[in-house]
Amino acid sequence: MEAQSPKGSRLDPWIDEYAVRAQSLTASEIRALFAVASRPEVVSLAGGMPFVSALPLQSIADSVAKMIRDQGSYALQYGSGQGDLTLRGQILDVMSDTGVSAHPDDVVVTTGSQMALDLVTKVFCDPGDVVLVEAPSYVGALSVFRSYQCDVEHVAMDDDGMIPEALAETIAAVRASGRRPKMIYTVPTYHNPAGVTQTQSRRDQVLEIAQREGLLILEDDPYCLLGFDGAVPTAIRARDSDQVVYLGSFSKTIASGLRVGWAVAPHGIREKLVLAAEAAVLCPSNFTQSVVSEYLGNEPWREQVDVFRGLYRDRRDALLESLQQLMPPGTHWTVPAGGFYSWVTLPEGLDATAMLPRAISELVAYVPGTGFFDNGDGAQNLRLSYCYPEPERIREGVRRLASVIETEIEIGQTFGTTNTLHHPHGSGIPTPDIA
Amino acid sequence: MEAQSPKGSRLDPWIDEYAVRAQSLTASEIRALFAVASRPEVVSLAGGMPFVSALPLQSIADSVAKMIRDQGSYALQYGSGQGDLTLRGQILDVMSDTGVSAHPDDVVVTTGSQMALDLVTKVFCDPGDVVLVEAPSYVGALSVFRSYQCDVEHVAMDDDGMIPEALAETIAAVRASGRRPKMIYTVPTYHNPAGVTQTQSRRDQVLEIAQREGLLILEDDPYCLLGFDGAVPTAIRARDSDQVVYLGSFSKTIASGLRVGWAVAPHGIREKLVLAAEAAVLCPSNFTQSVVSEYLGNEPWREQVDVFRGLYRDRRDALLESLQQLMPPGTHWTVPAGGFYSWVTLPEGLDATAMLPRAISELVAYVPGTGFFDNGDGAQNLRLSYCYPEPERIREGVRRLASVIETEIEIGQTFGTTNTLHHPHGSGIPTPDIA
Repeated sequence: MEAQSPKGSRLDPWIDEYAVRAQSLTASEIRALFAVASRPEVVSLAGGMPFVSALPLQSIADSVAKMIRDQGSYALQYGSGQGDLTLRGQILDVMSDTGVSAHPDDVVVTTGSQMALDLVTKVFCDPGDVVLVEAPSYVGALSVFRSYQCDVEHVAMDDDGMIPEALAETIAAVRASGRRPKMIYTVPTYHNPAGVTQTQSRRDQVLEIAQREGLLILEDDPYCLLGFDGAVPTAIRARDSDQVVYLGSFSKTIASGLRVGWAVAPHGIREKLVLAAEAAVLCPSNFTQSVVSEYLGNEPWREQVDVFRGLYRDRRDALLESLQQLMPPGTHWTVPAGGFYSWVTLPEGLDATAMLPRAISELVAYVPGTGFFDNGDGAQNLRLSYCYPEPERIREGVRRLASVIETEIEIGQTFGTTNTLHHPHGSGIPTPDIA
Repeated sequence: MEAQSPKGSRLDPWIDEYAVRAQSLTASEIRALFAVASRPEVVSLAGGMPFVSALPLQSIADSVAKMIRDQGSYALQYGSGQGDLTLRGQILDVMSDTGVSAHPDDVVVTTGSQMALDLVTKVFCDPGDVVLVEAPSYVGALSVFRSYQCDVEHVAMDDDGMIPEALAETIAAVRASGRRPKMIYTVPTYHNPAGVTQTQSRRDQVLEIAQREGLLILEDDPYCLLGFDGAVPTAIRARDSDQVVYLGSFSKTIASGLRVGWAVAPHGIREKLVLAAEAAVLCPSNFTQSVVSEYLGNEPWREQVDVFRGLYRDRRDALLESLQQLMPPGTHWTVPAGGFYSWVTLPEGLDATAMLPRAISELVAYVPGTGFFDNGDGAQNLRLSYCYPEPERIREGVRRLASVIETEIEIGQTFGTTNTLHHPHGSGIPTPDIA
């Protein structure tokens, strides 16, 4: 008989050999649930998958074929560690509405902006360094910070984004505890998962705090072009090119499967990022960069972003209308002005992780709130994504979810409490391919 | 006037904020030289760029276009962190001649095998852990090990690859010094940069040492299908699936610009690698994976590898013949049976780094040997790559190089020494896009 570890997995003979940082790499129990949630009969409001089926596939097929015929021996070859120069120039144009002004030399193309997050953290953070993040924060960023053994401190946010006073207080508390704050990670625009957008005056205050405290701001801005009224909020980076590393992505405006994102960084940091990128992957894919560059150069990409924007606005409307109609009293949610997400607060006493198995058996899935915190908070919260399902499916999903919540409330009223699963520390978030 | 740092670069206000590990990220002085070396009049024997122009571009264009039309909404979407299941199955077939037998679950697809190197090191090595590598070793691996603050110890090799007795002695010395050996990194087949292949009996001995000492073997095998007699040496992994993480790549058999590589790992390590990969990039590109999968499924890929193999054999022959005809006495080189490289030892007293500026002014480029060592060795060595230039250009390059070496010898005889540049510790290697 084979030896079994307590958790039922096969005994790992290498268990004592891993690096300390690998202790953060643990699979969550709800991962298995999400495998079930990918069945087609489940309405998934969980994954943040862009609706790439809206892309003009025939036209992309033709232009990629042309690109391969005309410049295949470039696209199929190793490339620059910093990324293709033509694409870096085009990226300046893509960012222009955010107010970010830069030089192609300031841009580093990465394998999705996730990799830029990883590289900035690798270059900046020693074990124990503190990263300040919103409460809640993007789960992929929390994974990166943990993987480099950073301490994560959450800063309160409300419908206007991260609260500057709370930021200043948290920094002071970190310093008082003898720890070293290193950077502020923020998604000011169409926040994942909170669905809110920071006001301009708060952005200015956050920047002033960072300048005063000597902290780097890591501004993650993948959703900026997806505002439902067409407005593009001015990035923090637009006001200060020395204090901010700005991250952008084509995952939501073109296609996530290409894995093309970028960082805009101050000179010295950019040099380190390129060297770190070369160590990590040698270079980003010339092939996918050429696909993006061709698309930006020859397709009406701004019109296509308008198509996405309209499509996501309709889905956001479907979500908000059905939440309004169907959710039991005591349930609250944010009203996103762009992006993919709304953040839901359940009635008092309910637990989103405990409720998830029942939701999935009722054929609706969401992401429980605890995954977006590093400190166990978020039990009463969940994230709803409206980006992928069609409006009618979203309405059906909300109907099922409302019914699950109502049942939970009844159970709570009958038995005085709802069942509460153990919340493991750390991420319970599936990979984004699970819709 | 702007403040200037001693090295003439702009003063970096973040200089005191970087992580300790970022100290390894320094650009070498010879990087600037290689920018010059990329001019078309220079015969570059420096970069390890595969000759992708030999690919059937028209046919690839057609099949990629079809792939986008038929399954674009999959290829353009986020994917699995472990990689596409179909491709993982196809990878088993690609590896079959190496004797590696595995299950698709054992395979992790990465953004080039460089990323697999990075992830294995991230998961396994704490700062100060010792990695044993060949002398010389692949520069991209040394960059990774430094970026995680590993100690690197070189193990002597000869024309039959890493010497098992030297490995055992080095491990003993590391343990005696109170340090912890963690893994053995090896390129047993068509070694980069040494151009040699380890014998099967030595592979067995290295494996036995690893088993006895409890060390992981990281077997890097990107060139295995490029043996000039068509033979594929049996991988170390073929004999032990628990002791070895095996790395493979499509960069040399299909196209480096796609950035698709893989790791085959024991169960527990594979789980950690997938979680680390998700933190680093969320998932590898579904798009480039679909391109590779389509190519493997519908193109005569083995015949294309035969084309590459013949082409590289002709270039290897051109290199060896002209070295034989033209090199001054006292110059030695390895005779590669496959792969991209020959490792040259200069006559006594010559210094390959010092000689490089003169070589480039004579319009020939190579990579000096010191970059392939972590300990300052290799001054008398250089690496010649024959993969990219046409045979006639290779002959011209060797002619120029022989003339530079002869001049160096004369200078040495006249003045008793050659000029010696300062050798900065660490890599002087350009990124692979510099041919």
